[in-house]
Amino acid sequence: MNGQDNPTPAQRLRDLLHAPGLAQVMGAHSPLSARLAEEAGFEAIWSSGLEISATAGVPDANILTMTECLNTAAGLAEAVNVPVLADCDSGFGNVNNVIHMVRAYEACGIAGVCVEDKRFPKLNSFVEGNQDLAPVDDFAAKICAAADVSDELVVIARLEALISGQGMDEALRRAEVYERAGADALLIHSKRAEPDEVFAFRDTYTGQLPVVVVPTTYNRVTATELADRGFAMAIYANQALRSSLKAMRDTLASIRRDGTTHHIEGDIASLNDIFALQRVPRMLEQQAYYESLGRKIAENAR
Amino acid sequence: MNGQDNPTPAQRLRDLLHAPGLAQVMGAHSPLSARLAEEAGFEAIWSSGLEISATAGVPDANILTMTECLNTAAGLAEAVNVPVLADCDSGFGNVNNVIHMVRAYEACGIAGVCVEDKRFPKLNSFVEGNQDLAPVDDFAAKICAAADVSDELVVIARLEALISGQGMDEALRRAEVYERAGADALLIHSKRAEPDEVFAFRDTYTGQLPVVVVPTTYNRVTATELADRGFAMAIYANQALRSSLKAMRDTLASIRRDGTTHHIEGDIASLNDIFALQRVPRMLEQQAYYESLGRKIAENAR
Amino acid sequence: MNGQDNPTPAQRLRDLLHAPGLAQVMGAHSPLSARLAEEAGFEAIWSSGLEISATAGVPDANILTMTECLNTAAGLAEAVNVPVLADCDSGFGNVNNVIHMVRAYEACGIAGVCVEDKRFPKLNSFVEGNQDLAPVDDFAAKICAAADVSDELVVIARLEALISGQGMDEALRRAEVYERAGADALLIHSKRAEPDEVFAFRDTYTGQLPVVVVPTTYNRVTATELADRGFAMAIYANQALRSSLKAMRDTLASIRRDGTTHHIEGDIASLNDIFALQRVPRMLEQQAYYESLGRKIAENAR
Amino acid sequence: MNGQDNPTPAQRLRDLLHAPGLAQVMGAHSPLSARLAEEAGFEAIWSSGLEISATAGVPDANILTMTECLNTAAGLAEAVNVPVLADCDSGFGNVNNVIHMVRAYEACGIAGVCVEDKRFPKLNSFVEGNQDLAPVDDFAAKICAAADVSDELVVIARLEALISGQGMDEALRRAEVYERAGADALLIHSKRAEPDEVFAFRDTYTGQLPVVVVPTTYNRVTATELADRGFAMAIYANQALRSSLKAMRDTLASIRRDGTTHHIEGDIASLNDIFALQRVPRMLEQQAYYESLGRKIAENAR
Repeated sequence: MNGQDNPTPAQRLRDLLHAPGLAQVMGAHSPLSARLAEEAGFEAIWSSGLEISATAGVPDANILTMTECLNTAAGLAEAVNVPVLADCDSGFGNVNNVIHMVRAYEACGIAGVCVEDKRFPKLNSFVEGNQDLAPVDDFAAKICAAADVSDELVVIARLEALISGQGMDEALRRAEVYERAGADALLIHSKRAEPDEVFAFRDTYTGQLPVVVVPTTYNRVTATELADRGFAMAIYANQALRSSLKAMRDTLASIRRDGTTHHIEGDIASLNDIFALQRVPRMLEQQAYYESLGRKIAENAR
Repeated sequence: MNGQDNPTPAQRLRDLLHAPGLAQVMGAHSPLSARLAEEAGFEAIWSSGLEISATAGVPDANILTMTECLNTAAGLAEAVNVPVLADCDSGFGNVNNVIHMVRAYEACGIAGVCVEDKRFPKLNSFVEGNQDLAPVDDFAAKICAAADVSDELVVIARLEALISGQGMDEALRRAEVYERAGADALLIHSKRAEPDEVFAFRDTYTGQLPVVVVPTTYNRVTATELADRGFAMAIYANQALRSSLKAMRDTLASIRRDGTTHHIEGDIASLNDIFALQRVPRMLEQQAYYESLGRKIAENAR
Repeated sequence: MNGQDNPTPAQRLRDLLHAPGLAQVMGAHSPLSARLAEEAGFEAIWSSGLEISATAGVPDANILTMTECLNTAAGLAEAVNVPVLADCDSGFGNVNNVIHMVRAYEACGIAGVCVEDKRFPKLNSFVEGNQDLAPVDDFAAKICAAADVSDELVVIARLEALISGQGMDEALRRAEVYERAGADALLIHSKRAEPDEVFAFRDTYTGQLPVVVVPTTYNRVTATELADRGFAMAIYANQALRSSLKAMRDTLASIRRDGTTHHIEGDIASLNDIFALQRVPRMLEQQAYYESLGRKIAENAR
Repeated sequence: MNGQDNPTPAQRLRDLLHAPGLAQVMGAHSPLSARLAEEAGFEAIWSSGLEISATAGVPDANILTMTECLNTAAGLAEAVNVPVLADCDSGFGNVNNVIHMVRAYEACGIAGVCVEDKRFPKLNSFVEGNQDLAPVDDFAAKICAAADVSDELVVIARLEALISGQGMDEALRRAEVYERAGADALLIHSKRAEPDEVFAFRDTYTGQLPVVVVPTTYNRVTATELADRGFAMAIYANQALRSSLKAMRDTLASIRRDGTTHHIEGDIASLNDIFALQRVPRMLEQQAYYESLGRKIAENAR
């Protein structure tokens, strides 16, 4: 089924980065949420470090290990047909860890990895705390290695200079270094309430790489604006989880208060909605089909 | 911290089953959803087979292995202070598998296990398909073994006679057998739109065990009614996931349609809500505290 | 690196089954033992259910789950260049479990799976106990499904008729059924002290499939004899672990008795032997190379 | 079964450190090897980072994650009755990672953790390369936190000053700091061919903590000498794996050369040896017992 004619996940992600217009990518934390993103029409899935760590109930600070991040990303890739781009924090250690990581992610069918130029352990970019950048040569070594030891995995270098307060010049300097090191794309991260910083970066950066953004705090920006400004991809990195959290909190409070689920039945998905997303009908059909086939073959042999 | 004075999770779950009134238990599929259930005031967490398999994108039909179910249940138990009752399907095989299962779950801090009297692999009780019961002696052996090899784990025998169409007499006959085999409680399952079946069971069953219900389809029933009727525990086994699914589906469709998250920012949880549930503030405080302490100790040694 | 010119693991395993002469396959239970087998010249690795369960300290009776078996097999496949054939017991459940299994194993780079026609949970074939066969139509359905839903995974049907006491006619009847169902090869299992049974099967079976043997109990047979008799593959399924067990038992007793490791230093591998198998020199070279490259690129950007 | 009268694993490990004489601890990499160590009479098990990473085929350089190290350690603890002391490298990150680690290890029944004062990622102490020490205040913070957030877990601080070339004064200075920070014991590591360094440390250190050694390179030393010199514990950290590697290498070469296993049958363990270590007889007895009990209970209910 994965014959020569079907592009691999990595090829499809690379195509998305280079296609005209803005690719829209949705963050996920479970196969179910990834299926909902695919169903809604998003073109790729972001295996979100924040969503995955929050789902696990721990801070987004490399408390979860590469094993746990990889297992989740691999589960997303199995669940959907669109490519999965994995948030790999700062690469889980030094260049040796990055080499191990790249091989492991590629072996699991992940289309691309995104590595950020902070130290290990990293802290979520929206949390006040230590946001120090890694030395530029250390991070360049990681990008070199990731690009070199992988087969066709997409390697995205995430610039944290604006998050860390190092400023636009540092972001641009590092963009140039990471491009030379072999990155396939750049992700410019910003926690401003307006997109001015990322617009300025996009306008000033003169290299050849596609540029990716994560419009979490500057959420008034639209896909059309981002496309017009020349961005290649937007990642909606945490909204799925945030909507889920709000709904569960409200629903649970209601059930606890009323002592019944009757009032909220109309506001939540049905069991059949769940069964459909679990692919229960397909399972039952396959079971019936193969069991019937097995009986026929066994009978013919008598 | 787990000294003699603090009751263990198993003791707290056993107490809930025997306390006057109805214990209300919420299904969960992740540490985050378990924390929301605890926050809402539910007295225990149900590690729900349906929720966990749906989150993983596979049918609730023993496609997930014991390893995966246990890992999820263990994650819930680490995340909350209330006891966790684990949905263990039909015990993942024969009596040997049940013995292995009971030891593994108890070692991970799970308070109780619920095992149902269907065959392996089981199919979700609300799905049309093979709902055949296990032979009563086979299942009695599993209950005997589970009660015997565990230290203090609560063992709940789930009766599927009404689901499988075997009727009330079979349910009552099996209830008696499982009670003799050493079960700590009975779960009587029904997929009727009204609670008449479970009411009839509760009225007719004359044994000593607490009786648990899962009011999914007969959702007009209230906690007050169930308490008045003499039930010990109600499990809301899938509503958290169903609310989450609906919210994510709507939110993702909206973002896809509008090309921005701006319109839905007010309808979803904030980043700070997520950080709080991840215990980010506690982590930063602990980090600052211990790093300061380390500096003082190192300085004093000079 | 996995371009069109390099055959996939499945293609290489299929080639081994069809090449003239006997392919010799060694059982493994860890990446380290798989590397030793590759180093010794074995042409493929058997991810051995007995070895893996024994290493985990549990009976070979489906106490380990598919998750655990798959993780181990995937680890072997990452560690070696020769193809890995996975012992998948009776398929971990019914036809639905087999479908899930086949997809999961193929996604992890496993070359082939071997499924035996016993019930779940199975018991090791050399242990006295329940060795009942699965109904032939049920097992035929599993083989149909495995062959159908996989891309190019090799599917080997293991015949347990001689183990279960059902006799040669049943073995031959089932061989025909499994061939029609789409198996890529047959494994005829026997626990006799002499190879007469497997020789008789090979002489009488008139189908087209390659035949595989596991000469554990009939260990006087040689590879030359097996090749001359027309077998395609021999699996040495447990000797690596058995040699390891004996050596550790003797070494530990000696250290305990003498209170020193000095006397046994000459009889055990050196630390450098271990480092070489861990690929430590390669890691240090890569680290030095990429760190140097990172420095050069960063300097050039100034 | 874990009532008030039975000491916990942590209590037993603490007792071993404080008992007169030398406690002898054997390194393990699998439940099977841990059972062999227990059978040989060793008083505790060392969940060895070198053995575990080598078994996984990767360098001992934090390529394996905490998840993988913990899963292995937890498996050892389930397999034996003696306490398990886990090699936790440098704590898998910063103080936040250590806090997470300590809770996770304690929840899995591990008796103690050993943390070394190197940076993350660490490199095996016997490999030439970066062996830089962590700043003393950073490591003191980790020891403070580990001792503080755990319930009764034994926390051993491993001194790498002699490995890193920082010398005896630094080792002694750090010993004092780690003792004040709350360590339960010190491990003084050395890669000399003679025990002179560790003897000198033991003679010069004037604190109250038990001192542990790992006599890998200075292997002429005996348990009697170590006891006489006042050491509390010796860890044989890698010999089990090294004996296993040598035996497998020889056995596999022999099978490959001879095309039969006949010549080596007498030199390797029997299948029954394996079955005994897997506890197969106990499983079959339990199965028969509980299945019979289930039948009796079911019959009595008619």
